[in-house]
Amino acid sequence: MARNVTQKLIESHLIEGDMKPGKEIGIKIDQALLQDATGTLVQLELEAMGLDRAKTDVAVQYVDHNLLQTDFKNADDHKFLKSAAQRFGLWFSRPGNGVSHPVHMERFGKPGTTMVGSDSHTCAAGSLGMLAIGTGGLDVAAAIAGQPYFVKMPKVMGVKLSGKLPDWVSAKDVILEMLRRHDVKGGVGKIIEYYGDGLKELSAMDRHVIANMGAELGATTSVFPSDEETKRFLKSQNREEDWTELVADQACDYDFHEEIILDELVPLIALPTSPGNVVPVSEVAGKNIGQVVIGSSANPGLRDFWVASAIVKDKSVSSEVSLDINPTSRQIMQNMIENKTFGNLIKSGARFHQSGCMGCIGMGQAPASGTISLRTMPRNFPDRSGTKDDQVYLCSPETAAASALMGKITDPRDMEKEFDMEYPKFEYPTYEIINTDMLVAPVEDNKSVELEKGPNIKTLPHIPKLKKSYRVPVLLKMGDNISTDEILKAGAEVLPFRSNLPEISKYSYSVIDETFYDRAMQTKDTRGGHVVVAAENYAQGSSREHAALAPKYLGQVAVIAKSYARIAWQNLVNFGILPLEFISETDYDFIEQGDDIELKDVINSVKSKEPIDVVIHKPSGERKSIKTKHTLSGRQIDVLIKGGIINDFKERL
Amino acid sequence: MARNVTQKLIESHLIEGDMKPGKEIGIKIDQALLQDATGTLVQLELEAMGLDRAKTDVAVQYVDHNLLQTDFKNADDHKFLKSAAQRFGLWFSRPGNGVSHPVHMERFGKPGTTMVGSDSHTCAAGSLGMLAIGTGGLDVAAAIAGQPYFVKMPKVMGVKLSGKLPDWVSAKDVILEMLRRHDVKGGVGKIIEYYGDGLKELSAMDRHVIANMGAELGATTSVFPSDEETKRFLKSQNREEDWTELVADQACDYDFHEEIILDELVPLIALPTSPGNVVPVSEVAGKNIGQVVIGSSANPGLRDFWVASAIVKDKSVSSEVSLDINPTSRQIMQNMIENKTFGNLIKSGARFHQSGCMGCIGMGQAPASGTISLRTMPRNFPDRSGTKDDQVYLCSPETAAASALMGKITDPRDMEKEFDMEYPKFEYPTYEIINTDMLVAPVEDNKSVELEKGPNIKTLPHIPKLKKSYRVPVLLKMGDNISTDEILKAGAEVLPFRSNLPEISKYSYSVIDETFYDRAMQTKDTRGGHVVVAAENYAQGSSREHAALAPKYLGQVAVIAKSYARIAWQNLVNFGILPLEFISETDYDFIEQGDDIELKDVINSVKSKEPIDVVIHKPSGERKSIKTKHTLSGRQIDVLIKGGIINDFKERL
Repeated sequence: MARNVTQKLIESHLIEGDMKPGKEIGIKIDQALLQDATGTLVQLELEAMGLDRAKTDVAVQYVDHNLLQTDFKNADDHKFLKSAAQRFGLWFSRPGNGVSHPVHMERFGKPGTTMVGSDSHTCAAGSLGMLAIGTGGLDVAAAIAGQPYFVKMPKVMGVKLSGKLPDWVSAKDVILEMLRRHDVKGGVGKIIEYYGDGLKELSAMDRHVIANMGAELGATTSVFPSDEETKRFLKSQNREEDWTELVADQACDYDFHEEIILDELVPLIALPTSPGNVVPVSEVAGKNIGQVVIGSSANPGLRDFWVASAIVKDKSVSSEVSLDINPTSRQIMQNMIENKTFGNLIKSGARFHQSGCMGCIGMGQAPASGTISLRTMPRNFPDRSGTKDDQVYLCSPETAAASALMGKITDPRDMEKEFDMEYPKFEYPTYEIINTDMLVAPVEDNKSVELEKGPNIKTLPHIPKLKKSYRVPVLLKMGDNISTDEILKAGAEVLPFRSNLPEISKYSYSVIDETFYDRAMQTKDTRGGHVVVAAENYAQGSSREHAALAPKYLGQVAVIAKSYARIAWQNLVNFGILPLEFISETDYDFIEQGDDIELKDVINSVKSKEPIDVVIHKPSGERKSIKTKHTLSGRQIDVLIKGGIINDFKERL
Repeated sequence: MARNVTQKLIESHLIEGDMKPGKEIGIKIDQALLQDATGTLVQLELEAMGLDRAKTDVAVQYVDHNLLQTDFKNADDHKFLKSAAQRFGLWFSRPGNGVSHPVHMERFGKPGTTMVGSDSHTCAAGSLGMLAIGTGGLDVAAAIAGQPYFVKMPKVMGVKLSGKLPDWVSAKDVILEMLRRHDVKGGVGKIIEYYGDGLKELSAMDRHVIANMGAELGATTSVFPSDEETKRFLKSQNREEDWTELVADQACDYDFHEEIILDELVPLIALPTSPGNVVPVSEVAGKNIGQVVIGSSANPGLRDFWVASAIVKDKSVSSEVSLDINPTSRQIMQNMIENKTFGNLIKSGARFHQSGCMGCIGMGQAPASGTISLRTMPRNFPDRSGTKDDQVYLCSPETAAASALMGKITDPRDMEKEFDMEYPKFEYPTYEIINTDMLVAPVEDNKSVELEKGPNIKTLPHIPKLKKSYRVPVLLKMGDNISTDEILKAGAEVLPFRSNLPEISKYSYSVIDETFYDRAMQTKDTRGGHVVVAAENYAQGSSREHAALAPKYLGQVAVIAKSYARIAWQNLVNFGILPLEFISETDYDFIEQGDDIELKDVINSVKSKEPIDVVIHKPSGERKSIKTKHTLSGRQIDVLIKGGIINDFKERL
């Protein structure tokens, strides 16, 4: 039978289940990616599991999020992560070596392999013909320990790319077009597979840009074929031997079909406060801006910086604009020096920052109050920049650079008139400068390595099993598309507590309701827990499992929502929180914050796979019984009842 | 009469008083330097004074401290400072343009002129034959408004430099030798003037290194002659026309004499937690380290980075060490790219950060708990790095780079054996690449500019006048050499509140006693204020006037100390706090925290210039009357009684 690339990748790694959409399958995992903000927890989990040595072919611990070191905590985490990487047989990419996704692509990515990563943008590696899935840290820990990765077999959306991008339009505009058409939920339950003649014009790093922000569509992952361009890229990294061809069979089909005629695209921009609010740049052109940031895993390549430098070359950025440049990796930085990109950007007035995620994860670079910030980054959820009521717009490096020059949002095509400029076209070098000096290889004698835990690194507390029945209050009712940035924000204040659960829990839902933590702690003591209610696409965005673990620590028994983002749904189960779904949407309207909900005989109900009765008690005394459901597999039900994967592991090992 | 350089500088600018050591003189000020952490307050003061336009020849507002932008506050301050610079006719050096002192030296420094700056390292400009004095912000505001700068005529210490530095020993070792001999109080009340044949071997930027850390000696400032090397430097900056010769008369003399035979120096290092704890590097060689930071105003020059890059070239830094590089300015960064310094450092494993003070002011780069950090910076006071119980050592770029390679404190002379390396010697380029793109010139139509104040920028509250009598408790008793970092710490958490007095006051003395703020607020309400007691050299270190203003806001009436650091003493008066001195040192031993002190008829006592009676009431009921004194000028007494300079200005304008 004819197979698309996705099916070939899954089939070659299938360990459990059938490739029927919606059914849980277990896949062998070849590679694992960890970053520091989620990685400290994963390493603590590996310790709790008693792992001898990583069983994946390649597992890499990156440090790219917590780089500011405003006190001892970040630096202590770096030491801990290095010791843990050595203890468990992982590679270690040292602080300042760069953002995980592009570094991984350059140094480790391999067509035809599978990867899980504790970062939602792990999907970027799909650019090389990998099946790369962002997931919660516990799933990554399990994969490193040699367990299959369990996921519902997604449907595959085939996106045909035809034609050729016009001048001043680039890969970022392709993924913004996908977001314009499908919004932040359009990819839920799907893998996005790109094919067609248009691919010829897209470099491997362009494909990275597109695959990366597949996370913003809610997709399980994005997949590109491995073709001659993939080969060229690997050769430029001196890794030609890692190339294999992986293309779809001629007669293959997809569950959904989409087509983008590249010639018809225009420069696009996502308005605050969702990557799905996409309009043509021309619609908002002329608005004054205060900041432009270029970099992040969503525009990480040498070309992305080069094109910006070519646009600003021999000109000065507006005196009203801080043009911040985050060079993605030390290797890209060296190449930027070599091809004058770096010098030209500095000369024009750019501020250079260390290699890492930086403002993309709210680690510095917060814009001034009431000013617009244009970023080539993947996300603009509220408060993610670190500034309350921020106005973050997402765009291509072309739009960013043109706007930095003009001091206002500018369609980059205007550069032709404004400066009599031709669209600058990048020539990829045959070989890039390669820098591996800050990648520390796994050690042979790993079992003798001691973990180095600073005072902020706390062992995980025990998670209780599911009880037979609950009557607990609804502590919060939320709307559609609540992001994990709202459930547990990132940023310079909070990220340093990623390895300290009691402390980080204080920030749970604080973006939405600053009283949540105090109310939850009280309810935990007096009522034995709480539930929260949400509408569609609960917990979209970053893969951070703290958005499940911290609420669990505060006594969260269940979430009742209209629907869930994929990673968050798995994280809830992994930490023993019941992810229930409304069967009738009007029940969502009926339930209110302050109501009690009652769950009877919950263990048997969950096992039965029948609708689950939830009784709503209003403060007035009114009560109503509603039906909810779950879509958990048998394996997941078992995990949930035990109180999550850690308990499950402890029981089995 | 034969004059030394210091006397020539003062004589040519003398407006009031006689040049007799210890007597207050008033000097005409040509230039003013502001940085952002102190500058927001200065700008608010200029606003309060109703200034039309700066009356100095050159006044520059730099932004080099608060660069991390972990929330809106830093970015709002940057906007405010830009608007204020334009409003009051100042230059504005944009965020990322670099550290004030080297940028000022390159672009504005001019032999034979005077300058005040709201940063204790303003003295670095002495390298060019300027009289450059670091002082509290109010003094700088007054100078910008055209007022003379008042200071006690210091004595001059002539330091004869003879011979030639050995290989692997550089300018930093010269100033560390001065600190080894004279410690952090050795320069109090003195100007240090360097002369002698040894100067021939010291470049202008080497002289900057030495002049800069004159602040750590407690000196009023440091002065170098303006000679052929000064001319070469200004020519390399395309500013030869700003050069004039300024050398001491042959027959001149000094109040104190010191001599350093350069040939005899060895690599030196300051141990935690004072720049005065200096020993030869060889004495502590072999200790494991976790971090090395190169940069800051204490080693800002192209040579300093180049020599480090030449040492690590084609080698890798220890995997245990984070080698952090803070390129001092965008101009130096461009030159570092040009001469391969940048590329060689990156290749060896260095982490590059944005141009600014960074870890030098605790703005990021905090070391891990329990690890040693080696820095080319000027200060290692407790907690300044952002890590509690930190172990910061200060050294030359040679020692820093050698140690980064070896992973332990290393005498750089060992590089000869270890790597068969000759000492790398820098050739200064005839012309440096010059970058002025982020220096915004004063505008003509300045009066129409509106100040842009974000929500964290608060108008100063009214400061009360001196009352006739007080009976208030001693809230804190401190020892010798308490630094302004301990009185009001800097760092990423606190610096953003420099423009928000009520908020920053919460950190007063918190490094010494976390209960201070609460106790002071209570005492302010119930007792009408408090005093604190200290021993020698109270409030050494940075010039931050918040270390006087915040305690004043909390009700501080007086400090009683054995002696004061110069800038802090002026700041106390400027904000209406009485700086009393013990006459008998045994009285310091008698007075305790928790005692009450009584000051009767204080206004007349202060005016009389007779010893001032202070009655100490013990909680037991015991009482003792002691004698204290002050050394205030008539002008200062007047200012003090009015409650400080702001009130004085308001009254006069």
